[in-house]
Amino acid sequence: MPAYDPQNPFAKILRGEFPCYKVYEDEHTLAFLDIMPRCSGHTLVIPKAPARNILDITPDDLAHVARVGQKIARAAMTAYDADGITVQQFSEPAGGQVVFHLHMHVMPRHEGVALLPPASRKEEAAVLEANAAKLVAALKG
Amino acid sequence: MPAYDPQNPFAKILRGEFPCYKVYEDEHTLAFLDIMPRCSGHTLVIPKAPARNILDITPDDLAHVARVGQKIARAAMTAYDADGITVQQFSEPAGGQVVFHLHMHVMPRHEGVALLPPASRKEEAAVLEANAAKLVAALKG
Repeated sequence: MPAYDPQNPFAKILRGEFPCYKVYEDEHTLAFLDIMPRCSGHTLVIPKAPARNILDITPDDLAHVARVGQKIARAAMTAYDADGITVQQFSEPAGGQVVFHLHMHVMPRHEGVALLPPASRKEEAAVLEANAAKLVAALKG
Repeated sequence: MPAYDPQNPFAKILRGEFPCYKVYEDEHTLAFLDIMPRCSGHTLVIPKAPARNILDITPDDLAHVARVGQKIARAAMTAYDADGITVQQFSEPAGGQVVFHLHMHVMPRHEGVALLPPASRKEEAAVLEANAAKLVAALKG
């Protein structure tokens, strides 16, 4: 497996070099909206420590990501009046990975609404801002 | 969300009422092969405690499942000479869930080989036995 690349876009988000629609942050993790969402409210949870994917992340960091993913999932049910949640995590290109900093996809789902294909369209800023605000409010509630 | 149903098939596996191709077990979790795999070596990790999905599992049990999922993912890379791993977890029918005991899908992937649609065919017992043996050996190695 290739080494971790500190120039990947999520590393840049963690260093503040790229912006993001942040919804949650703690000592070990950051969560923000996917700007090319497969569904409304599609959120990514990442570890702050460098990790390419499930093959090299520390077990403790993976556990932190899972716990935060659950917080996001529960809040998303309320924030978006969702009917269910789909979680995905891809490791290496054959596994579906495109950005090489571990990320857990948390996707709020609605009955009868299929996921868009990955990276099919960039969402408008106003929609992302509104969705982030809804999720942040639900996480506080 | 409906209450946990103790008659679901994975609860029956946990009670020993249904068989399974077990690959790993510890105090909190059980892992076994999916008998309708979407790829060779498709494995499910479940908590021993009752939990319908990500919305009601305890955070500690979810963390245990994630840690074991990582063990399975790493071992599967060796056992099946895989190129990557796809992890999925579905909550509620709208999220893709069919069996209502939380399960984390760990799917070893190979370049150029797409996942089969869910539940498209039941694998032969001899193949499942051989795959379980490979994964158990890699987990010990």
